[in-house]
Amino acid sequence: MFIHETSLRVRYAETDQMGIVYYGNYSQYYEVGRVEAIRSLGISYKEIELNGILMPVTKMNIKYVLPAKYDDLLKIVTIVKEKPDKRISFRTEIYNMNEELINFGEVTLVFLETETKKVVDIPSFLWDKMKVFF
Amino acid sequence: MFIHETSLRVRYAETDQMGIVYYGNYSQYYEVGRVEAIRSLGISYKEIELNGILMPVTKMNIKYVLPAKYDDLLKIVTIVKEKPDKRISFRTEIYNMNEELINFGEVTLVFLETETKKVVDIPSFLWDKMKVFF
Amino acid sequence: MFIHETSLRVRYAETDQMGIVYYGNYSQYYEVGRVEAIRSLGISYKEIELNGILMPVTKMNIKYVLPAKYDDLLKIVTIVKEKPDKRISFRTEIYNMNEELINFGEVTLVFLETETKKVVDIPSFLWDKMKVFF
Amino acid sequence: MFIHETSLRVRYAETDQMGIVYYGNYSQYYEVGRVEAIRSLGISYKEIELNGILMPVTKMNIKYVLPAKYDDLLKIVTIVKEKPDKRISFRTEIYNMNEELINFGEVTLVFLETETKKVVDIPSFLWDKMKVFF
Repeated sequence: MFIHETSLRVRYAETDQMGIVYYGNYSQYYEVGRVEAIRSLGISYKEIELNGILMPVTKMNIKYVLPAKYDDLLKIVTIVKEKPDKRISFRTEIYNMNEELINFGEVTLVFLETETKKVVDIPSFLWDKMKVFF
Repeated sequence: MFIHETSLRVRYAETDQMGIVYYGNYSQYYEVGRVEAIRSLGISYKEIELNGILMPVTKMNIKYVLPAKYDDLLKIVTIVKEKPDKRISFRTEIYNMNEELINFGEVTLVFLETETKKVVDIPSFLWDKMKVFF
Repeated sequence: MFIHETSLRVRYAETDQMGIVYYGNYSQYYEVGRVEAIRSLGISYKEIELNGILMPVTKMNIKYVLPAKYDDLLKIVTIVKEKPDKRISFRTEIYNMNEELINFGEVTLVFLETETKKVVDIPSFLWDKMKVFF
Repeated sequence: MFIHETSLRVRYAETDQMGIVYYGNYSQYYEVGRVEAIRSLGISYKEIELNGILMPVTKMNIKYVLPAKYDDLLKIVTIVKEKPDKRISFRTEIYNMNEELINFGEVTLVFLETETKKVVDIPSFLWDKMKVFF
């Protein structure tokens, strides 16, 4: 299992007229969590793309427990529980400044070869960085 | 069961550097589908809010089958299968111009009294418009 | 001079906690105006890109007169006043349902050859559609 | 004159299919710059709103010099040159990791009393924090 933690400040742009973060913007917070989790392994998602691999999302689910609000400093916890194969699933948990779990969800991405657009196994240059956790 | 159909043009802003619609932007398409579905009943979501009811999202799940691309004219089908109570669930199906199902998902929203922030039953002014379908 | 008019419904996602459209989202409305203006000429911006031309923005200015609000049906007027050369400038005027001018601005884009990334004159396949207006 | 510097990582969501940051998203970067500049004074924009003042944007202009790209770590420099009165103007300069100026612009905001929606002078609780710079 691989766990990573980062933090993020809610932007005014991300709120809506209900006075809370718009429900569609959590996917950006999940992205920030994933990207920083991967970076902590010593490789960036940008480098993954430069190495000829794309990672489109194939499914997502989200539970909204409590609202995030403007200027909140959120804790984003990103977890990979299962060994990735052709797919990788990230669980994200978001906590507010009172350490309350306000939102959680799972995002599954598939490894695609950019050139052929074929689904492939997790590339070895990424797996080499992750295998110690599984 | 209540079904409604609308269409929507993909904006450049909604694409990402993968050349497809960013996975987080489908929630906006689902919103457009819901809002136009409600409008077709003879009431707008705006009026629901003006009548003292907020409808925050409590969960969402999405399956990404095929990518939507820039300038695609998408068909957004919005379906309410189950009789709403304190919650209402919308299924959304998105089709491209070749009538392929490219994306589908469910969003559940809860009825909240704006003033008290308490969960309440579907307000009668909305249910009166919908009950014929259930 | 070339003038085109389209309309657009404000999304919930586009509002912020001030209860109005977030100031950064007008650039999307301007994009919709430009894209539909070009389409009305008988060519789409998508086709322009497929023909090897990119049109990045080089400058923008916006005046915010009155706020746009959730669910407003806005009229987007797009105007090309000056004959395009290596650049094209679009003026956009946004009107609310009371015919009040609520927002206006100018966006300048440059014609770039996708392959060489060099600035080029307006491509003839586009100019041929526009020249009647100048 | 008041100058403040912060940094920000470009999100995948903020890119478009041109492979660069969408031109409309710089307004969010400007917002982050302003908000962190104000926070450095010992007050947050959130507190300004809690004290009954809203700050809607009345104009913006942007020059796009070079594109920002995915995963760039941008330096956001926020400058208030002129003494604020009923309005406050922020100049923002954005630099990439090679210290190149890639984007700059000005945003003017007005002080509004939330309750009356009337334009007012810069509130004293904010001016007291800023006056040392003018």
